Amino acid sequence: MRYLMTFSYDGTNFYGYQKQPDKRTIQEEIEKVLSKILNDKIIINASGRTDTKVHALNQKAHFDVEKQIDSRKLKHSLNKMLPDDIYIKDIILVDSSFHARYDVKYKKYIYKLSTNEYNPIERNYIYQYNKQLDVEAMIKATKYLIGEHNFKSFTKAIQVEKDYVRNIKDITIENRNGIITFVFIGNGFMRYMVRNLVGTLLEVGEHTIIPDKIKEILKSEDRTKAFKTINPEGLYLSDVYYQ
Amino acid sequence: MRYLMTFSYDGTNFYGYQKQPDKRTIQEEIEKVLSKILNDKIIINASGRTDTKVHALNQKAHFDVEKQIDSRKLKHSLNKMLPDDIYIKDIILVDSSFHARYDVKYKKYIYKLSTNEYNPIERNYIYQYNKQLDVEAMIKATKYLIGEHNFKSFTKAIQVEKDYVRNIKDITIENRNGIITFVFIGNGFMRYMVRNLVGTLLEVGEHTIIPDKIKEILKSEDRTKAFKTINPEGLYLSDVYYQ
Repeated sequence: MRYLMTFSYDGTNFYGYQKQPDKRTIQEEIEKVLSKILNDKIIINASGRTDTKVHALNQKAHFDVEKQIDSRKLKHSLNKMLPDDIYIKDIILVDSSFHARYDVKYKKYIYKLSTNEYNPIERNYIYQYNKQLDVEAMIKATKYLIGEHNFKSFTKAIQVEKDYVRNIKDITIENRNGIITFVFIGNGFMRYMVRNLVGTLLEVGEHTIIPDKIKEILKSEDRTKAFKTINPEGLYLSDVYYQ
Repeated sequence: MRYLMTFSYDGTNFYGYQKQPDKRTIQEEIEKVLSKILNDKIIINASGRTDTKVHALNQKAHFDVEKQIDSRKLKHSLNKMLPDDIYIKDIILVDSSFHARYDVKYKKYIYKLSTNEYNPIERNYIYQYNKQLDVEAMIKATKYLIGEHNFKSFTKAIQVEKDYVRNIKDITIENRNGIITFVFIGNGFMRYMVRNLVGTLLEVGEHTIIPDKIKEILKSEDRTKAFKTINPEGLYLSDVYYQ
């Protein structure tokens, strides 16, 4: 039987989602508790990784068990035993052919930053940029990014991918009392891609480059052309959409 | 010369404001850095304490120095050297007779709790109550608390005060997408008083008691009559007002 789990976490005190030796990771915490409850070695397969300090509102992962389980009871037991920075929202039975990573249609990421004065209470959840930004210019620049493009310029420098083409369905940027929220929806995001996109849009917002420059960076397919990878603490994996 | 400092902090990783041996406190962190920069032993006098895990948006404290300082430069140096969970917002020269605690006219406290499902990302900043509440009933109950009353029923059980009379100028309760925000403005709040007031109002919100019962608890001047002290992580010292 295959189950699909929806869960949220505060990435602050984790070395990212994916299991690695001697590091506190979300995958390991969940597998440890899940294996204990089900009295079997359970592996969970997520929709994708998230990096150190990155949060998730609705991450998804599937796992297999020998026989049907009471998913409401399992949710309750998991939340009782998991640390307080992970929360299981939902567990549903899915078809055995379903795959939490391969079947992703779209993903939604949110990036939050503050243009106000430094606020210690927000520091792990809203990137403290603490400078003014021209939001209109950034919105103008997004039009070059929306659609199907080769995003090689915006990936992690050392990362090698088979295919750098992704389809960004929508990007919105909103300013609410000095807190800027970027929302990205796309069929896939490579490592550091969202953070590199935000980092480059900020150069537009600061008038270091004009919106049109984004087109040029994208066309160059050269990682060294894009700007800095913005801090992880403002990033949230918000939603994962399946067929 | 006397200076008044406005500062904010994330109380999560502190054993409260007030200095105590072998504990990480806000007072000690600030005094340590301030003394180092000014090359003198500086003591800061705050408007009052805050307990473990309680946050502050605009805490105030005064301190004395031998000669006039460049307060903009001092603010900058302090923020560079302080840990990232404390931030100095402002430093101004005040009259040498001014006292950050004795001259308080009003204080404003905010308490935030969530009636939604558990959210790990909010857990240190919004108390995860995760149950429904009758906000209208709670608002009704506040009318008994506003004004000058003996608040002995709402103090810390073992705390002895000379005078339990305080004047609460205003209480507002607002529900925004399931996040309930309580705002208290008063001329003084005894230890645990805000948290005991919220804890008791929640009993009204859950229909364990009727709003009128608040009047009775208040009149009893008996600490054992009020309800539980609510968790500290939803509490913020918001503002301190002087003459």
